[in-house]
Amino acid sequence: MPTVALDLLGGDRAPDVVADAVALLQDDPEAPDLLLVGPVDHAVELLRERGIDPRGFVVEPATGAVGMDEDPLTVLRQNPEVSVSVAARLVARGRAQAWVSVGHTGAAVAAAVLELGRIPGMARPALSVVVPSLAGPVVLLDAGAAPDATPDLLRQFAVAGHTYAQVLGIADPGVGLLTIGSEEGKGDRLRRSAHELFREVLPPAGIRYVGPVEGHDLGLGMAASVVVADGFTGNVLLKGLEGAVQWAATRMGSAYGDPEPAWRVVTQTATSDFAGGMLLGVSGVTVVGHGAGTAEEICACVRLAARVCDMGLVSRTARAFSTEVR
Amino acid sequence: MPTVALDLLGGDRAPDVVADAVALLQDDPEAPDLLLVGPVDHAVELLRERGIDPRGFVVEPATGAVGMDEDPLTVLRQNPEVSVSVAARLVARGRAQAWVSVGHTGAAVAAAVLELGRIPGMARPALSVVVPSLAGPVVLLDAGAAPDATPDLLRQFAVAGHTYAQVLGIADPGVGLLTIGSEEGKGDRLRRSAHELFREVLPPAGIRYVGPVEGHDLGLGMAASVVVADGFTGNVLLKGLEGAVQWAATRMGSAYGDPEPAWRVVTQTATSDFAGGMLLGVSGVTVVGHGAGTAEEICACVRLAARVCDMGLVSRTARAFSTEVR
Repeated sequence: MPTVALDLLGGDRAPDVVADAVALLQDDPEAPDLLLVGPVDHAVELLRERGIDPRGFVVEPATGAVGMDEDPLTVLRQNPEVSVSVAARLVARGRAQAWVSVGHTGAAVAAAVLELGRIPGMARPALSVVVPSLAGPVVLLDAGAAPDATPDLLRQFAVAGHTYAQVLGIADPGVGLLTIGSEEGKGDRLRRSAHELFREVLPPAGIRYVGPVEGHDLGLGMAASVVVADGFTGNVLLKGLEGAVQWAATRMGSAYGDPEPAWRVVTQTATSDFAGGMLLGVSGVTVVGHGAGTAEEICACVRLAARVCDMGLVSRTARAFSTEVR
Repeated sequence: MPTVALDLLGGDRAPDVVADAVALLQDDPEAPDLLLVGPVDHAVELLRERGIDPRGFVVEPATGAVGMDEDPLTVLRQNPEVSVSVAARLVARGRAQAWVSVGHTGAAVAAAVLELGRIPGMARPALSVVVPSLAGPVVLLDAGAAPDATPDLLRQFAVAGHTYAQVLGIADPGVGLLTIGSEEGKGDRLRRSAHELFREVLPPAGIRYVGPVEGHDLGLGMAASVVVADGFTGNVLLKGLEGAVQWAATRMGSAYGDPEPAWRVVTQTATSDFAGGMLLGVSGVTVVGHGAGTAEEICACVRLAARVCDMGLVSRTARAFSTEVR
């Protein structure tokens, strides 16, 4: 059973919502062991308020979080005891096998790179989310870690995303390149170059490249199990999907005269594997949740982190990069 | 009452679905006059099949369409009588005030630029769609006409989109820049430069710049009435929204045990102003519909084309570029 380090200070409603998640996981016999990261006295108080005996938990001291308007690298260099750094370091030192933080994606990415290091062959890590398409789960990456990409960085995302899809239990996942117009020669300059590169290098690396896919393929899911995008496009698309589903729940709930079933669809989706972004390409399991996430969503992130530890995500990713044809 | 030239040969199910749209518009006393573009004998036959007296219509001969896998510029140069060119030319020559085609966006853009010319100040035209956010209509551009953009091209889109929003009746529309993370300094290189440029030049041009917006703002709509994107990101996002709404209609329809009301929401949205893409920056009203569009969606495109003619879209766009601070 892996141990998961949980950042008490990340998220819009931290630390209370994270403490609520700890209370929920306390009642789940299959939940992984937790190592809490935050101010010790406050953590003890939060646990007591929820009727939890704090002696059942180790709290690793941390002295602050990165604010949404702060530059992560500056804060991380000035204060090595900021919660994301402490949590990532617990994984680097083997005291935990994974770490989870909700909230500031840039801070989590920076802490993961600085404390855990990158997997050789992966120049920049990619945030990978699972989108619940009509045809089954689709892995979308990068969802916002690396806004400016090159064709070769997209190739690295393809390799990492392919491994992640296999770890999630998708057999022989097809990899698609997110672009506009599925015909040959369409798309922007970056995509036209990446398409040629993917066609040349992915099949020899044992990765089935299914070609260009489009924005609607995330909802429909027929075209590919892994969708590769630069972090700018991937983040815009992911947030667009979230907004569209909220639009649909509101409009469709009104059309039926009863909003509850529509919103239950939204909530069920958010509290499954789809809750957490997996940071691929760093040497330790790192899950970044939604900043506005509920306690149930944070629990889903913790469970996802434990599950990919059990499936050997990091070693399998490293192996994929060490054996691929460059 | 403006006359709208309608391309019979554009769209996945052309010409039948376009002829169905003609039949529907025939029954609407407020519909604009139509000038049909296509093979004359076939058009007459299609009208007769639908119980319409062909003598009530002028059919302007055209000898083919641009296939989805063909390069538009090559086809347009080889055959000046292809339907999109004939339709755009009718507007250039003043025989129609607008033209509508569904299907091949690249072909429609190329025909519009070649036959109508660009509005001075706008280097490349932008496809502009209206998204029905929870807070009201939001104009998104570019939705796929120009995949590679510069900060200055995005500025031109902001000016054109602002005018289009006013033409649609949105008072003092706020313009947002689509990016990732709404905090200062976030986004990719293109967006960081564009944000500085927008801040500097839009307010002196009388355009309210509301700052960075994110993907979910298309569904929620609180942040801005005009959302500016490069054509790659805009197209991915638009198609992503369409796929997400189909996902939601399927899942939510199942949750209620009755799919019909959910799909009615989708259909109502598709047959309003939201049906058509308005090509901004060319010297004539050009509406590009969804290639898979139904007859009702094509009717909505024709009505939208007539409405913006009445509101003087082209002259107002030209004026916005002639008076703005460069």
